[in-house]
Amino acid sequence: MTPVQRPSPITASVDFEADGVQHGFLRLPYSRDDSAWGSVMIPIAVIKRGNGPTALLTGGNHGDEYEGPVALFDLARTLRADQVQGRVIIVPAMNYPAFRAGTRTSPIDRGNLNRSFPGRPDGTVTEKIADYFQRTLLPLADLVLDFHSGGRTLDFLPYAAAHELPDKAQEKRCFDAVAAFSAPYSMKMIEIDAVGMYDTAAEDLGKVFVTTELSGGGTSTAKTVGIAKRGTMNLLKHAGIVAGAPETGPTRWLDMPSGDCFGFAEDDGLVEPCIDLGDRVRAGDVIARIHPLGRTGQTPTEHRAALDGVLAARHFPGLVKTGDCLAVVATVEDTI
Amino acid sequence: MTPVQRPSPITASVDFEADGVQHGFLRLPYSRDDSAWGSVMIPIAVIKRGNGPTALLTGGNHGDEYEGPVALFDLARTLRADQVQGRVIIVPAMNYPAFRAGTRTSPIDRGNLNRSFPGRPDGTVTEKIADYFQRTLLPLADLVLDFHSGGRTLDFLPYAAAHELPDKAQEKRCFDAVAAFSAPYSMKMIEIDAVGMYDTAAEDLGKVFVTTELSGGGTSTAKTVGIAKRGTMNLLKHAGIVAGAPETGPTRWLDMPSGDCFGFAEDDGLVEPCIDLGDRVRAGDVIARIHPLGRTGQTPTEHRAALDGVLAARHFPGLVKTGDCLAVVATVEDTI
Amino acid sequence: MTPVQRPSPITASVDFEADGVQHGFLRLPYSRDDSAWGSVMIPIAVIKRGNGPTALLTGGNHGDEYEGPVALFDLARTLRADQVQGRVIIVPAMNYPAFRAGTRTSPIDRGNLNRSFPGRPDGTVTEKIADYFQRTLLPLADLVLDFHSGGRTLDFLPYAAAHELPDKAQEKRCFDAVAAFSAPYSMKMIEIDAVGMYDTAAEDLGKVFVTTELSGGGTSTAKTVGIAKRGTMNLLKHAGIVAGAPETGPTRWLDMPSGDCFGFAEDDGLVEPCIDLGDRVRAGDVIARIHPLGRTGQTPTEHRAALDGVLAARHFPGLVKTGDCLAVVATVEDTI
Amino acid sequence: MTPVQRPSPITASVDFEADGVQHGFLRLPYSRDDSAWGSVMIPIAVIKRGNGPTALLTGGNHGDEYEGPVALFDLARTLRADQVQGRVIIVPAMNYPAFRAGTRTSPIDRGNLNRSFPGRPDGTVTEKIADYFQRTLLPLADLVLDFHSGGRTLDFLPYAAAHELPDKAQEKRCFDAVAAFSAPYSMKMIEIDAVGMYDTAAEDLGKVFVTTELSGGGTSTAKTVGIAKRGTMNLLKHAGIVAGAPETGPTRWLDMPSGDCFGFAEDDGLVEPCIDLGDRVRAGDVIARIHPLGRTGQTPTEHRAALDGVLAARHFPGLVKTGDCLAVVATVEDTI
Amino acid sequence: MTPVQRPSPITASVDFEADGVQHGFLRLPYSRDDSAWGSVMIPIAVIKRGNGPTALLTGGNHGDEYEGPVALFDLARTLRADQVQGRVIIVPAMNYPAFRAGTRTSPIDRGNLNRSFPGRPDGTVTEKIADYFQRTLLPLADLVLDFHSGGRTLDFLPYAAAHELPDKAQEKRCFDAVAAFSAPYSMKMIEIDAVGMYDTAAEDLGKVFVTTELSGGGTSTAKTVGIAKRGTMNLLKHAGIVAGAPETGPTRWLDMPSGDCFGFAEDDGLVEPCIDLGDRVRAGDVIARIHPLGRTGQTPTEHRAALDGVLAARHFPGLVKTGDCLAVVATVEDTI
Amino acid sequence: MTPVQRPSPITASVDFEADGVQHGFLRLPYSRDDSAWGSVMIPIAVIKRGNGPTALLTGGNHGDEYEGPVALFDLARTLRADQVQGRVIIVPAMNYPAFRAGTRTSPIDRGNLNRSFPGRPDGTVTEKIADYFQRTLLPLADLVLDFHSGGRTLDFLPYAAAHELPDKAQEKRCFDAVAAFSAPYSMKMIEIDAVGMYDTAAEDLGKVFVTTELSGGGTSTAKTVGIAKRGTMNLLKHAGIVAGAPETGPTRWLDMPSGDCFGFAEDDGLVEPCIDLGDRVRAGDVIARIHPLGRTGQTPTEHRAALDGVLAARHFPGLVKTGDCLAVVATVEDTI
Repeated sequence: MTPVQRPSPITASVDFEADGVQHGFLRLPYSRDDSAWGSVMIPIAVIKRGNGPTALLTGGNHGDEYEGPVALFDLARTLRADQVQGRVIIVPAMNYPAFRAGTRTSPIDRGNLNRSFPGRPDGTVTEKIADYFQRTLLPLADLVLDFHSGGRTLDFLPYAAAHELPDKAQEKRCFDAVAAFSAPYSMKMIEIDAVGMYDTAAEDLGKVFVTTELSGGGTSTAKTVGIAKRGTMNLLKHAGIVAGAPETGPTRWLDMPSGDCFGFAEDDGLVEPCIDLGDRVRAGDVIARIHPLGRTGQTPTEHRAALDGVLAARHFPGLVKTGDCLAVVATVEDTI
Repeated sequence: MTPVQRPSPITASVDFEADGVQHGFLRLPYSRDDSAWGSVMIPIAVIKRGNGPTALLTGGNHGDEYEGPVALFDLARTLRADQVQGRVIIVPAMNYPAFRAGTRTSPIDRGNLNRSFPGRPDGTVTEKIADYFQRTLLPLADLVLDFHSGGRTLDFLPYAAAHELPDKAQEKRCFDAVAAFSAPYSMKMIEIDAVGMYDTAAEDLGKVFVTTELSGGGTSTAKTVGIAKRGTMNLLKHAGIVAGAPETGPTRWLDMPSGDCFGFAEDDGLVEPCIDLGDRVRAGDVIARIHPLGRTGQTPTEHRAALDGVLAARHFPGLVKTGDCLAVVATVEDTI
Repeated sequence: MTPVQRPSPITASVDFEADGVQHGFLRLPYSRDDSAWGSVMIPIAVIKRGNGPTALLTGGNHGDEYEGPVALFDLARTLRADQVQGRVIIVPAMNYPAFRAGTRTSPIDRGNLNRSFPGRPDGTVTEKIADYFQRTLLPLADLVLDFHSGGRTLDFLPYAAAHELPDKAQEKRCFDAVAAFSAPYSMKMIEIDAVGMYDTAAEDLGKVFVTTELSGGGTSTAKTVGIAKRGTMNLLKHAGIVAGAPETGPTRWLDMPSGDCFGFAEDDGLVEPCIDLGDRVRAGDVIARIHPLGRTGQTPTEHRAALDGVLAARHFPGLVKTGDCLAVVATVEDTI
Repeated sequence: MTPVQRPSPITASVDFEADGVQHGFLRLPYSRDDSAWGSVMIPIAVIKRGNGPTALLTGGNHGDEYEGPVALFDLARTLRADQVQGRVIIVPAMNYPAFRAGTRTSPIDRGNLNRSFPGRPDGTVTEKIADYFQRTLLPLADLVLDFHSGGRTLDFLPYAAAHELPDKAQEKRCFDAVAAFSAPYSMKMIEIDAVGMYDTAAEDLGKVFVTTELSGGGTSTAKTVGIAKRGTMNLLKHAGIVAGAPETGPTRWLDMPSGDCFGFAEDDGLVEPCIDLGDRVRAGDVIARIHPLGRTGQTPTEHRAALDGVLAARHFPGLVKTGDCLAVVATVEDTI
Repeated sequence: MTPVQRPSPITASVDFEADGVQHGFLRLPYSRDDSAWGSVMIPIAVIKRGNGPTALLTGGNHGDEYEGPVALFDLARTLRADQVQGRVIIVPAMNYPAFRAGTRTSPIDRGNLNRSFPGRPDGTVTEKIADYFQRTLLPLADLVLDFHSGGRTLDFLPYAAAHELPDKAQEKRCFDAVAAFSAPYSMKMIEIDAVGMYDTAAEDLGKVFVTTELSGGGTSTAKTVGIAKRGTMNLLKHAGIVAGAPETGPTRWLDMPSGDCFGFAEDDGLVEPCIDLGDRVRAGDVIARIHPLGRTGQTPTEHRAALDGVLAARHFPGLVKTGDCLAVVATVEDTI
Repeated sequence: MTPVQRPSPITASVDFEADGVQHGFLRLPYSRDDSAWGSVMIPIAVIKRGNGPTALLTGGNHGDEYEGPVALFDLARTLRADQVQGRVIIVPAMNYPAFRAGTRTSPIDRGNLNRSFPGRPDGTVTEKIADYFQRTLLPLADLVLDFHSGGRTLDFLPYAAAHELPDKAQEKRCFDAVAAFSAPYSMKMIEIDAVGMYDTAAEDLGKVFVTTELSGGGTSTAKTVGIAKRGTMNLLKHAGIVAGAPETGPTRWLDMPSGDCFGFAEDDGLVEPCIDLGDRVRAGDVIARIHPLGRTGQTPTEHRAALDGVLAARHFPGLVKTGDCLAVVATVEDTI
C-alpha cells in the first residue's frame, strides 16, 4: 500500500514554467522559540528560454563546502536567458541553514541532507528540504549536478564523479557527463551504502547525475573555483542548454576498488602527515603518524597504506579522533 | 616602586640543570567545577649535555597551528642528549588547553596567549602560563623559536620572520637566525602593536627570537612539517647546539611596508577568491569577491589590492564576516 | 489495521470522578542525565460537583504566552466546588517544561506542542503530553478553551476565535462560545495547515473549541489578564457550569480571507514599525521598514499591505530575520 | 601620578573635521577563535557643515533597546549636510556586538557598556568601546543624546530625562534640552549609583546630556519611534544645528524621590499584573501578584506600592525571578 | 508482514569464532560536523577456547555507572584463553559515547540505551548500538550479565537482580545465576514498564540474564569494584566457562512489591536525608526533608515511608527537583 | 597609600543590631540580559539576644557541598532567640548563585569564592560577595565556622580543621574550637597557598576560625548531616552563645606533613580504586589504577602512596583527567 503523502510545506516564489531570469525563494515554515511564525528561506534561481532540457545545479548539500556555492551564486547572477535553450534551476545552498552556519549538517536538527533522502513532508527541516527535492525539483530535471568538497574535516584531490549503475545506458550518460565536466581527476564510484543519498534519489529517477569533490578544508581557492565554474559551463554545453563545445582538458581517472582504500584512526592524537594529496604510495608506506597528546617522549602510531595508489583524500584538522577517516588511497586508471 | 611579585603557581617536574633527556610536565593548579583540585599539565622536554647555549622551542602558542607541535613532539622524542652541546627546552604546546581544544585561544578563559605577556601569577590560566615563560623559561634561553601558522581562519605563504629592533646588533642576530632557518619565504616585520606578545617579551630580554608562519587552515601537510623540522635543526646547528651546518636553500624575502598591506572585509558573505597565495598582484587588481548570502542575483562586492606585491596571507574559511582580515599583500625584496 | 496503542506513561494524582476541589499533578517519567529516575510534573486542578458538562481549560500550550496561565492559576485557586455544576479541569501550563523555561517550545525536545497532536505514548516528552490530552483529557470534555497569545516574537490584537468546520452545527456552537467569551475582537479562522494542532484534535472529537490570541511579546498586562479572566467565566456561564449570564461587551469580528494577509520579511534587519496594531491600512501602505544592520546610509526595504484592513498581528522583536512573519492584516466584519 | 595611557586600538574610517555626509566604521581589532585577525566594525555617520556646535547622538548603548537605533539609522540616512550648521555625529548602535545579538550586554564579554566607563584601551571589547567614547568622541561634543528603553526585561512610560547636577548652570542646560526633546513624560533623576555610566562620563566633561526611556520589551512601535525621531530633531533645533523651532507638546514631569520607588521580587513565579503603566496608585495598592509555578492552589504573594504615584516602569517578562525589579512607582510633578 | 531489515552499519574488527584473546572495536560510522567520515569506536574483547557456552558481559549501558567498566576492562586485560572453556564476549562500555562523556545518556543523541531496544539500523547512534546487540551479540550468548549502578543521581544498596518471568524454568536459571553472583543483596524484580530495555531483549530471546545495582553517585569504591569482579568470576564459574566453584557469601533478598516503594519529590529544594541506605524504616517514618532554597525560616516538606522495609535507593545529589525519585523502600525477604 | 574604597553595592534587609529572629536577604544588584535591573538575593538569618559573642556560620562557600547548607537552613529555622546569649549570623549559602546551580563556582562568573578574598566592591559578583564578608560580616564576628565538603569531585574523611597560625594564642583558640566541634576526625592544616581564602581573611582579622571537610561527592547523608548539626551546636555552646556543654566524642587527629600527601593523575582514564577512605596504606601501596579508555587489553597505570598513613581524600568521579588530584594520604596522630 502506498500512502498518499501530504503536500510539501515548502512554497516557491519562482514560476518554474516562466521564461526569463527569476531570483526567488523556497519558503519553508519553521516555528521556533525565536520566531513563532518564522521560515527558512532558501535562495533559488531559474533561467529559462523555450524548450530544451533542464539542468538542476546544486551546492551546499553539505554546508561547509564552498566551490559549488561560489560557482552557482556567480552563475545565477550572470547567466542570461538568451544564453539558454531549455532551463537551468540553481539552488546554490541546498541545506541553507547549514550553509549559513558554515557546518556540514543543519544547526536546526543536525541533519545531514545527503543522508536524508527521500525525506518527509512532516519530518525535520532537513527532511522537508529533501522531500521537496525528491518530489518537486528532481522530477523537473534531466541533468543533475551536485557540488561537494571535503568540508572542514576532509581534503580531496579535485575530481568529478559518477556511480556504477545497474542501467548501463544511464551509467554511460553519467560518465560522459563526468568527462565533459573535465576536472583534473575523475572518479568511478561504487557506493557501498547509498541509503539516503541525493545521488541515489536522482539516479533512481533515471537522471544523469554528476557529483564532485573539489578539495576541502572548509575553504576554496581561485583554482578550485575555476574548476567548478568551467565544469558547470561544460556540463550545460554538453547537455545542449548552452551553446558551444565544452572546454575540456586532461583528466586522470581514479578508482576505489575496495574498503581497503579507507583508513581509520584507532587513536586520538596529533597528526603528522608523511605524504600529501596526489603523492604516490605503495602498500606498507607510512601515510601519517599519530602522536599522543598527553606528554612528550611517546611513540607515535603509524598509519600505513593498504594498497598501491595515490593519496586521494585525507583528514584535514591537525588533531584526529579515534574513528576518523585518516586517509583514502585511490588507484589510478589511464582509461575509463 | 616595583612590587614584589608572588611566585608562579606552576611547578615543573623536570630539572632544568640536569644532563640527559627528561620528559615531564609544567603543573598549573586549576580548581574548577569538574575538578576541585585539578591542574593543567603542560608537557615539557629538556635535552641537555654539558655547557652551551640554550634554545627554547615552542609551538601551540595559538592552539590551532600545527607545524610547530608536530615538529616539536617529534624532536622531543628523537633528539638524543649526545647530539646536543648545551640545552634544548621544548614546549610543543604552550597554550596547552587551547591546543587540546584545537582553538586559537584557551577554552578556559578565552585567553590569546600571544597577547597575554608579561602575564600575572594570580591572573587567568593563560596569564599564569605567560608569567611562567616570562619569569622562568625565557631567562634560561639564548635562542627562542616560536612556531606559528595561520590557524583555522588564516592561510600564509610559509615564512620565518624576525622584527626590526632598536638594538641593531640584536636585530642582525635575529635575521641571521631567520636566514639559517631557511624557509621558502622570509619576512622582515615592523610590529605596529607589539603589546602583550611573546615576541616582544623575548626581544626585550635581549634574546635571539625567530618566529614563523607556515601556511594555516588548522591543518598541516608533509611539506610544511618538513619546513618546520628542517628549520628547527638548522637553527640548532646555527646556534652550535647541534653539530653540523644548516641545510639551507633559497628563500624569498617579503616586506609589509604599510597598513595598506592589510585588507578587511566590510560585508558579510561568501568569499570568491580570485587569486591564490603567492600570486603576483598589481594595485587595483581584484583579490576576492564577497557574495551576499541572502538571495541570488545580487552584485558581489570586490576587494582590490592597494599596492603591488604577492598575496601573502588570506582569510581561510569560505564565509567571511565584516571586519575579518580578507587578504594581505606583501612586497618582495631580493636582498635583505 | 489499527494498532493497539501502548498506555500513556503519564499518571494523574487527581481523581477525575471525585467531587470537590483537587490540586495535583500529571506525572510523566523522564529519565535524563541529571535525574535517572526523574519526572515532569504538570500541575492540574479538578473542580467538580455533581453532574453537568465538563470544561477543559488550558494555558501554556506555548510556554511564553501568559494570559492563560495567569487566569487559570488564579481560577484554580479561587473557584469553589459549590460554584460549579459539572466539572472544570484546569491545566494552566500544558507544555510545562516550556512554561518553566519561558519558551514557545519544550527545552527538552524543542517540541511545539500545538503541532504534536495526536502525539505518541512512546515518543518525545512533548508527544507524550499530546497523547495524554488526545486519549485521556479531551474525551472527558464537552467544552475546550485553549489560551494563546503571540509569545515572545509576535503581538496580536486581543481576540477569541474558532474555526470554520465541516459540521455547521458544531461550528455554530463554537462561534456562540466565542461570542460568549466576548473579547474586544473575535476571529473566524480558516486553518490552512491544521496538522498536529490541539484545535483540530478537539474539533475532530466533536468538542466545542475556543482559542484566543491576547496580545503577546512574552508578557501580560492587567488589561489582557482581565480579558482572559472575564472570558473564562463567561464561557463557564455560557456552558451552564457556573451560574449566571456572561458579562459581554462589544466585539469586532475580524477575518483573514487569504494568504495575502500574511507578510514575511525577505531581509534581515532592524524593524521600523510605521503603523501600530489596530491601525487601519489600505493596500500599498507601508507597514514597516527594514533597515540593514551593517552600516549607515543604506536604503531600508519597505513592507507594504497587500489588502485593506487593520494591522492584526506583527513581529515583536526589534530585529527581524528573513522568513519571519512581519505583519498580518485582517479584514473587519461588522457581523458574523 | 597620572599614567600615560596607551592609544585606543579603534580607528575611524571617517574624518571628523570634513564637511559633508560620511558613512563609515569604527574598527576595533578583535582576535578570536573564528577570526584570528578579526575586527568589530561599528557603523558611524558624520554630517557636518561649517562651524557650529557638535551633537553626539547614540543608540544601542544597551543592545536590546530599539527606538534609538531606528531613529538614528533613519536620521543618518536622511539628514543632508545643507540642513546642518555644525556637526552631527551618529552612532546608532554603540555596543554593536550587543545590538547584533539583540541583547543588553555584549555577547563577547557580557559587558554592560553603560557600566564600563571610562573604559580601558587594553581591556575587554566593551571597555575599549567605552574608552573610545570617553577619550575621542565625547570631547568632540557639545550636546550628547543617548537613547534608552527598557529592553527585553523592563517596560517604561516614555520619557526623556536628565540628572540633578552639582553645576546648576549645566543642570539647567540639560533640563532645557529635556524640555526641548518634548517626550510625553520627562524625568528628573538623582542617580544613586552613577559609577561607570556614560551619563556621568558626559556630564563630568561638562556636556549637555539628555537620555531617554521610551517603553521597552525589546521592541518598538510606530508611536515610540515617532517620539524618538521628533525628539532628536527637536534637540538639534534647540542646539541651533538644524534650523527652526522644536515641535514641542505637553509633557508630564515625573520624580523618583527615594529608594521606595523601586520594588523587587522576593519570590520566583508567574506575574499577574494588577495595574498597567501610567495607572495611578496609592501606597498599599496591589501592583502585581506572583503565583508559585510548581502547583495549583497556592496563594500568590502580593506586591504593593510603597508610595502614591503612577506606575512608571515594570518587569516585562511573564515570569519573574527573585531579585528582579518588579515595579517602579514615580511621583508626578506639574512643573519642574 | 515482517519487513526485511537493513544490515547493521556496525562492523566488528574481532572474529567471534576465533579461539584466543582478541581486543578490537565495533566501528559505527557517524558523520558529523567535526568529522565528515567519522566513526564511534566501541572497544570489545573476545576470549574464546573450544566449545562451550558464551557469556556476554557488559558495562556502561548507562555511561555514568562504573563498577561494570572497571571490572570488565580489568577482566578483558587479564583473562587468558586457557582459563576459558567456551567464549566470553566483553563490551565494557556499551553506550561508549555516554561512557566517554561520563553521562547516563549519549551526548550525541541523548539516547538512553536501556530504553532503546530493539533499536534500528537506520536510527540514531544509540539505536544503532541497540540494534547491533539485539541482532548480532545477544543471539551469540547463553548468559548475559549487564552491570548497572545508580549513576550520578541515584545510590543503591549493592545487589544483583533478575526479573520474574513467564517462563518459570528460565526464571529459575536467572535467579540461580543471581545467587551465584553473590552480591551482598539480591533482588527479585517485577518490571512494570519493560519497554525498550536490554533486559527484556535478552530475556525474550530466552537468555539467562543477570543485572546489578552496585551503589552509585557516579563513582566506584574498592569495595563495590570487588563485588563486581568476584560476581563476574562467580557467574563464569557457575556457567562452566571458567573452572572452579563460585566464591559465594551471604546475601539478603529484597523485594519491591508495589509502586508504593517509590517516592517522588513534589518540591524543588535542598535534601536533608534523615536515614541512610540499608537503614530500617517503618511506614510513616520521615526518610528525608526538602528545604526551600529561596530564604531561611521556611518549613521543609517531609517525605515519609509508605511501607515497612529498608532504604534501598535514594536520590544522590544535594538538591532535588520536583518529580525526582527521592527514595525507594524495599522489603526484606529471608529466602527466595 | 590606602585608597578609599567604594561602599559595597550589597544591602541587607536584616538589622544586625536588633534582638530577635530575622530572616532576610543580602541584595546584590546584578544587571544582565535576562533582568536589566535584577539582583542576587542571598538568604541570611540573624538570631540575637542581648550582649555576647557573635558567631558567623556559613555554608555554600562552594556551591556543591551540602552538609553546611542543610545544617544551617535547619538551624536558622529552629534556633530561638531565647536560646541565645549574643548573636548568631547564618548565611547557609555564601556563594548563592553557585549553590542554586549545584556547582563549585559561580555560574555567573565562574568565581571560586574561597579564592576571591578580600574581594572588590566593583568586581565580579563573586568578588562583591567576598568584599561584603570581608568588610561587613567578618568584623561583626568573634567565631567563624565555614562548612566544606569535597563537592562533586572529591570525597573526604569527615573532619573539622584549623590552621597553624603565627599567633599561637589565636591558634590555640582555633584548635580548642575544633576539638569542641568534635567531628570523627580533626585536622591540623598548614596552608601552602592561602591567597584569596576566606579562612585567611578571617584569621588575619584575629577571629577564631573553624572549617570542615565532611565527605563529598555532591551529596550528604544522615550521618554527615548529623556531624554538622551536632558540631555547630557544640561550637555555639563552646562559645557560650548557647547554654550547655558540647556533646563531644572521640576524634582522630590527622596531619598532612608535606606535599607528598597529594597525588595527581598523569593520565586520563577510568579509575579503579584499590583502597577506600580511612584504609591504612604504606608507602608504595597501590591506591588506584587508571585504565586507558580507548580500547581493551591495555595496561593501567598504578598510583602508589608516597608515605604511610590513611587515605584521607580521593577523586570522586569514575573518570579522571590528567592533573586531577587522585588521592590524599594523611598521617595519623594520637594527640594534638
